[in-house]
Amino acid sequence: MSYQDSALSSEERAEHLLSLMTLEEKVGQLVQLFGWKTYRREENGVALDEAFKDAAERGGIGSLYGVLRADPWTEVTLATGLSPKEGAETINAIQRYAIERSRLGIPILFGEECSHGHMAIGATVFPVPLTLASMWNPALYEEICRAIALETRSQGGAATYSPVLDVVRDPRWGRTEETYGEDPWIASVMAEAAVRGLQGKRLDADDSVIATLKHFAGYGSSEGGRNSAPVHMGLRELHEVDLRPFKAAVRAGAKSVMTAYNEIDGVPCTSDKYLLTDLLRKEWGFDGFVITDCGAINMLVWGHDTAADPQEASAMAVNAGVDMEMSGDMFRAHLAAAVQSGRTRMQTLDQAVLRVLKAKFELGLFEQPYVDPERAARVIGSEEHIRLARQAAVEGIVLLKNQGDTLPLSKESGSVAVIGPNADNVYNQLGDYTSPQPREQVSTVLDGIRAKLAHAPERVLYAPGCRVKDDSREGFDLALKTAAAADTIVLVLGGSSARDFGEGTIDLRTGASVVTDRPHSDMDCGEGIDRSTLGLSGVQRELAEELAKLGKPLVVVYINGRPVAEPWIDEHADAILEAWYPGQEGGHAIADIVFGDENPSGRLTVSVPKHVGQLPVRYNSKRTTGQRYLETDLEPAYPFGFGLSYTEFEYGPVTVSPAEITPEGRAEAAVTVTNTGSRAGAETVQLYISDKVSTVTRPKKELKGFAKIWLQPGETKTVTFGIGHAELSFIDRDLNPVVEAGEFEIQIGRHAQDVQSAVLTVREQN
Amino acid sequence: MSYQDSALSSEERAEHLLSLMTLEEKVGQLVQLFGWKTYRREENGVALDEAFKDAAERGGIGSLYGVLRADPWTEVTLATGLSPKEGAETINAIQRYAIERSRLGIPILFGEECSHGHMAIGATVFPVPLTLASMWNPALYEEICRAIALETRSQGGAATYSPVLDVVRDPRWGRTEETYGEDPWIASVMAEAAVRGLQGKRLDADDSVIATLKHFAGYGSSEGGRNSAPVHMGLRELHEVDLRPFKAAVRAGAKSVMTAYNEIDGVPCTSDKYLLTDLLRKEWGFDGFVITDCGAINMLVWGHDTAADPQEASAMAVNAGVDMEMSGDMFRAHLAAAVQSGRTRMQTLDQAVLRVLKAKFELGLFEQPYVDPERAARVIGSEEHIRLARQAAVEGIVLLKNQGDTLPLSKESGSVAVIGPNADNVYNQLGDYTSPQPREQVSTVLDGIRAKLAHAPERVLYAPGCRVKDDSREGFDLALKTAAAADTIVLVLGGSSARDFGEGTIDLRTGASVVTDRPHSDMDCGEGIDRSTLGLSGVQRELAEELAKLGKPLVVVYINGRPVAEPWIDEHADAILEAWYPGQEGGHAIADIVFGDENPSGRLTVSVPKHVGQLPVRYNSKRTTGQRYLETDLEPAYPFGFGLSYTEFEYGPVTVSPAEITPEGRAEAAVTVTNTGSRAGAETVQLYISDKVSTVTRPKKELKGFAKIWLQPGETKTVTFGIGHAELSFIDRDLNPVVEAGEFEIQIGRHAQDVQSAVLTVREQN
Repeated sequence: MSYQDSALSSEERAEHLLSLMTLEEKVGQLVQLFGWKTYRREENGVALDEAFKDAAERGGIGSLYGVLRADPWTEVTLATGLSPKEGAETINAIQRYAIERSRLGIPILFGEECSHGHMAIGATVFPVPLTLASMWNPALYEEICRAIALETRSQGGAATYSPVLDVVRDPRWGRTEETYGEDPWIASVMAEAAVRGLQGKRLDADDSVIATLKHFAGYGSSEGGRNSAPVHMGLRELHEVDLRPFKAAVRAGAKSVMTAYNEIDGVPCTSDKYLLTDLLRKEWGFDGFVITDCGAINMLVWGHDTAADPQEASAMAVNAGVDMEMSGDMFRAHLAAAVQSGRTRMQTLDQAVLRVLKAKFELGLFEQPYVDPERAARVIGSEEHIRLARQAAVEGIVLLKNQGDTLPLSKESGSVAVIGPNADNVYNQLGDYTSPQPREQVSTVLDGIRAKLAHAPERVLYAPGCRVKDDSREGFDLALKTAAAADTIVLVLGGSSARDFGEGTIDLRTGASVVTDRPHSDMDCGEGIDRSTLGLSGVQRELAEELAKLGKPLVVVYINGRPVAEPWIDEHADAILEAWYPGQEGGHAIADIVFGDENPSGRLTVSVPKHVGQLPVRYNSKRTTGQRYLETDLEPAYPFGFGLSYTEFEYGPVTVSPAEITPEGRAEAAVTVTNTGSRAGAETVQLYISDKVSTVTRPKKELKGFAKIWLQPGETKTVTFGIGHAELSFIDRDLNPVVEAGEFEIQIGRHAQDVQSAVLTVREQN
Repeated sequence: MSYQDSALSSEERAEHLLSLMTLEEKVGQLVQLFGWKTYRREENGVALDEAFKDAAERGGIGSLYGVLRADPWTEVTLATGLSPKEGAETINAIQRYAIERSRLGIPILFGEECSHGHMAIGATVFPVPLTLASMWNPALYEEICRAIALETRSQGGAATYSPVLDVVRDPRWGRTEETYGEDPWIASVMAEAAVRGLQGKRLDADDSVIATLKHFAGYGSSEGGRNSAPVHMGLRELHEVDLRPFKAAVRAGAKSVMTAYNEIDGVPCTSDKYLLTDLLRKEWGFDGFVITDCGAINMLVWGHDTAADPQEASAMAVNAGVDMEMSGDMFRAHLAAAVQSGRTRMQTLDQAVLRVLKAKFELGLFEQPYVDPERAARVIGSEEHIRLARQAAVEGIVLLKNQGDTLPLSKESGSVAVIGPNADNVYNQLGDYTSPQPREQVSTVLDGIRAKLAHAPERVLYAPGCRVKDDSREGFDLALKTAAAADTIVLVLGGSSARDFGEGTIDLRTGASVVTDRPHSDMDCGEGIDRSTLGLSGVQRELAEELAKLGKPLVVVYINGRPVAEPWIDEHADAILEAWYPGQEGGHAIADIVFGDENPSGRLTVSVPKHVGQLPVRYNSKRTTGQRYLETDLEPAYPFGFGLSYTEFEYGPVTVSPAEITPEGRAEAAVTVTNTGSRAGAETVQLYISDKVSTVTRPKKELKGFAKIWLQPGETKTVTFGIGHAELSFIDRDLNPVVEAGEFEIQIGRHAQDVQSAVLTVREQN
């Protein structure tokens, strides 16, 4: 028996390999280092770093994080970074060194950021998860995840730090863009699609990667929307909401889970044995490995202060069920000592090593540790992936307002002033966890509109107007002059999650791109950038107010990462599109919608509040949440599930059959939907269920199904939803899912506030 | 053996009485009716209501709520209400009917609102609890509670619906004024003082009443600060924070507990057996009775939706441990049927009846059911109580800012313009749960300042300027003219928790009081009035901005019920006093401070945030709560414990002795404080403890002691704090209090952000 025998099971091979390992080699497998620090670019290719070589030779290296990551944080930019082919070659060189120069030749697991595309130069940048969720199209999302997996694995990446399954409660949070929104059901459906898409049918296929579910758990409910802040939540709600998508993704076969920075009710997740072992492994049957978030073990010592020193923190983490530390020094420096001092047991360590090794065997890394650089160059950024990115943006962009059919605009006549800080800004458009990309890879709104009117370029005018974040009004004059000369204004406002890419900025007075030493950063969103207000940053609303005075049709496009609370714009803009960060094809997709080549079909997966003081605002609050504040009711500006179309859909009555079932029974709800307008379009038919009486309190209503259907003008389709245990059950006081007898209101409709309903009765079995 | 034999114990008497009762009579004892509906005023005294008579004759009545309550809600106003003597006579008449016309002659328990004075006409109105807590003087608070008990009992009230022990997390909540603030330690100390003060040494004394601890539990942590909204909290935090004052008050002997409206993690408190029985009775040893909040059982059916019908809700409540329903119809209509249908057991019902009867025996109601109307007239609103009310306001008002010794003003020279909607408004000054009171009973700020300058009345000018809540600027002219004619402006702004008392309003243009049919209500605070912003309502800040342009010294006085976030005023006012609602003597107390007859000594018990989007803001957050939002740091405008004086205090170094103890040991921390200024004054020396490392996460620091000391100029005192289990323990993962080995930072100082520290080491016992 040998670990090199691929006829053996991954478990058997891992067991054998473990039996050969020293303590140092074991710890090595639980360690991850910063990938971009393992090499530097030189004239002829890359040179490997001495510290990396030393680590590889001595104990081996379990994993490298972000070998190909390029962004200001890593100090690897577009200019200093690697092309897809070079990236693949570099990964091969690193892998070869690790295999050939270590005693046991264990391949490295390359872990990469892939939230909405591989975070590497040249990789296709899809819209952020908030836009992807707004598609309400998990099949398309699964395809996108397959594309991401292919691009990533083609450069050697074998584990991804996605999907993000946090259910967001407070849009002040800078990572709202990275989530699927406020609803646990849609997050669960998307989670399953992500696992299927990323991991494919076999992990050892050359287009599959390990999905890492994060952040486990409660991370989307931090106090005040502050990143990593404490979570105040009871266990029942945790199970009902936050754990639901994780459980679904584990059941779908996810092979890795990342611990959250935060604490829940005083217990840091990274040292929570209940979460990481009792629940995840014993109850849910998870058989992959658990990785921390970056620095999460340090936080046990400095922040949570539940560990007196790094050794205790390392022991706590591994004892709770952590297997690998994400790109940190704690395990590397202290885990062996923790075994020797008895703070953790060798058996515990061995178990962690086994899990990591098993993943490597399952990925086929021992058989196929290297990748083909030519293939990487071929598949990354392929036409097919670009098409997917555009389709995703088209389906994810939400039309919030369209007064008197302002949209679509005509391509045949009329001039358009494209104005605003996000009208032609490639960085602001891509969202957080994106590498810088070549200018020509990204279409901005200006690009998109110019392409639509390529036959009449003089009908497209442009001025930036202002920046996202600073208070300079020096661009107002040009913007107003430009807008005055046009028939319609397309005003592209929003936010930015782009850290300073060091590439340049825009001269507000002329609209020209300029390269400066210290370029302006617009960043008002993204990880670590939480906000205390939800209005537009800087002078953007003021720009809108000035432009509105011109009395021309005003189309506002938001490119941003969290709901915008701007009642003035809600009232005064003629049309509003919410794109979130729409990715590299965002400009073309927005132009597709603006000019009517595509009919918008995106639906919100977050409620858009009217004011920060109104929080929390969500569609699935409890019935006792109250009616109003002194200054405002509790209704959102735009409800969950909302989004307009260029056509109209009429709903028939809701039927439920049978109308009475037992707790184990199943019923079917149906509705007919007709496209009564004059254009083809897609409608997302949404199923909500309201449990009338229950032993614990229940939300007013909960999304329990949806179906996106495409209808030609005049076409009618019948949509049916199966209703059974999954749709009717809730988490009871003992944390078990239960279906209780009683009446359930079965609601089907356009969005959370526009439904028709019928009653389903569940009666006790005799 | 007979229940009429006062030589027997209350338990024995209750047991015997119970044995004589029918089911209808038993239910009767668990029922409370609206007290003010039991009679109506007629030319010669009052006439008893027929429905009341019927209920009294048939099954008896356990309790009446608010017989003497006068406010718009009850439609009993000052004009239609009863004087203290008449009130006592009315109570006697009601009691007499109940005793003489019922089969068993069981006296009624009269329950009254007494949050900061008996809610009855003529009763002394003390400052609201938020001001009372700001005194940091539990001995004075205990005296006040004795006074309240005396006034209440003298009119027959034998149970009070205070103290409010909710720990407030979100100042958007309209009931913030009713709490002791954000800290569980100070709430616990105040809770004990309230129980001692209200209940006295013996419940059957003629100046004692039963204290009702409310709202059990978590009610101060509702989502979004919305009244009765769901509470998202883990059990550990609940024990650590919210349950702490309840536990302290139960240990102090409190005889009644009121359930909260809200749910915690899906379980409504009013049907939570864990809270009401397992914890409260079995673990804490509570031996009094549990009453619901008003309508809380209805909410189980309509709101929480955890009960299918009223009978189920009634059964759920009594099965969980509720003994009496506050002024509702659920028990009365459905409890007997619930016994008959088997949804609750007779034994459960009997236990509840026993607890209510026992309380009545303990109160001595069988021996002394009637009160002396002459005594009521004598003790209510006595000189002594008025003095206490003034002292409370003096000690509770917090000086937030005093630029260049703007305050105190001189009585000898200079004119004062008293401006603002709360400068001369008796209703706005008294806070929620106050009856209307005769004009002459209340001193407004204008009254107080006029009294100080009675020797030179021409030096006091007045204009209202604006109202609290509406947007009329028609009073600005008069206010600006008035201010322009004076040397100093005292601008009295804030809020109002006064429901429309139907008494009149103020003509903004002339400053005159006018009586109208539909008087203006300023209410922007109080129960049910939650806010989405924390700025001043209406045009108040605009008035301040206009007045500031005059360039005269501007003293802002806030009379209000929740922290005000007004950075402009923080920056531009020369002095700021926060009085909360200071009660009937508030005007004199403010004048005492404004003119230096008293040296301010109040300290905040809530953090004052800078903006609503910054919430939650509290001094005792966890270390991982974060550093900042994009727009602001997380620091409050004014920290917990903060308050200025007209003199200065210098602190010596902190000493801790011994520096090392065992977990069961005790140490003493000491500091010397010297009054280095030129005026006598009081300093509140505050002890905070920071646990450096612990098995669950701990707050950055926690208040664990305080001492208010009075120092003459140049005088030095040494303040010592005992430190042991109570100060060092926290609630561990298993919900038990524990002292862990390790280092504790012992911090002593002026407020949460101004401390000096020393280290105390706890080492494991060998």
